[in-house]
Amino acid sequence: MELYLIRHGIAVERGLYDIDAERPLTDKGRKRTVAVGKRLKALEIHFDLILTSPLVRARQTAEILHSLDLSARMAISQNLAQEGNIEAWVAWLEHWRSALRSPQPPVNAPREPKQIQPTKLALVGHEPNLGEWAEQLLWGRSPNVRDSAERFIVKKAGVLGFHLPDQGSPLGNSQLFWLSPPRLLLP
Amino acid sequence: MELYLIRHGIAVERGLYDIDAERPLTDKGRKRTVAVGKRLKALEIHFDLILTSPLVRARQTAEILHSLDLSARMAISQNLAQEGNIEAWVAWLEHWRSALRSPQPPVNAPREPKQIQPTKLALVGHEPNLGEWAEQLLWGRSPNVRDSAERFIVKKAGVLGFHLPDQGSPLGNSQLFWLSPPRLLLP
Repeated sequence: MELYLIRHGIAVERGLYDIDAERPLTDKGRKRTVAVGKRLKALEIHFDLILTSPLVRARQTAEILHSLDLSARMAISQNLAQEGNIEAWVAWLEHWRSALRSPQPPVNAPREPKQIQPTKLALVGHEPNLGEWAEQLLWGRSPNVRDSAERFIVKKAGVLGFHLPDQGSPLGNSQLFWLSPPRLLLP
Repeated sequence: MELYLIRHGIAVERGLYDIDAERPLTDKGRKRTVAVGKRLKALEIHFDLILTSPLVRARQTAEILHSLDLSARMAISQNLAQEGNIEAWVAWLEHWRSALRSPQPPVNAPREPKQIQPTKLALVGHEPNLGEWAEQLLWGRSPNVRDSAERFIVKKAGVLGFHLPDQGSPLGNSQLFWLSPPRLLLP
């Protein structure tokens, strides 16, 4: 399975909206997010699901990716809000993966030769959460790790890509294969 | 300062050469390395120095990047050979950075308005070394870390980019801003 963490695009400044959760993307934020989405499309990346933080700037980012036909489905998850936590998401993931495995094809359905594609899940969220999640995916929780240090620089509309183990917790057992800010991703 | 770790391109298979260190790049390996180099060039990345492992497949990779005018200089470092170690490289880095800082402009030289550009150093080497170095740059040595686990997937001709602190050891104090396999880097 492949997991993609995507940070929301550039949003209007803090303070212009009374409620932080309602800050929308700026025009530049939209354009850049569209450009990133088109690049993902050109790279033939297609998600089985985009899960997004409920905050407007994240939801708009996810909607742009969804509208570019990058994903079959899109849903909102409180786990991706700024106060969300990765353990709750891991529990959700376990359920989602079991549900993906269980549907059986109808008995008489023609058997198409099926190209085996890894399941691809995208999460749209915030910093510093995404960088912290990245750390926990690779290392798990380690009492030795200084929690305040920012080890991954995740720019707005930036992307991280992980390979997750087929079974068991992804925490401490995942591998990073991609990290890119829009600047190094766009043509 | 920015540090780039670059893995050598695709080389001929083990066993075709008696001496592993002499395995050259394949035609495909050359072409893909040239393509990666051109992409780095298009991204306006220019190194102050490319330091390469002495092994033929790494040297050829570095020479391709150098021939594309991606770097002012190129040199070989034993620290980047498979038996090299990061502590020796950190000692070298300290010297190299002091040397970069010391040259003073001639007294009567015209003062050009100078755009401040971070120093950029590229290292061309091998796996699993580069992935291990990446881990130590971000986390330092931690007794909690399972040393055998591969946390970064570094493909042949793949690139990692780090921000290093201005002073002091980069081990445990660096930040990752880029990791890309050629597949996700090339147009």
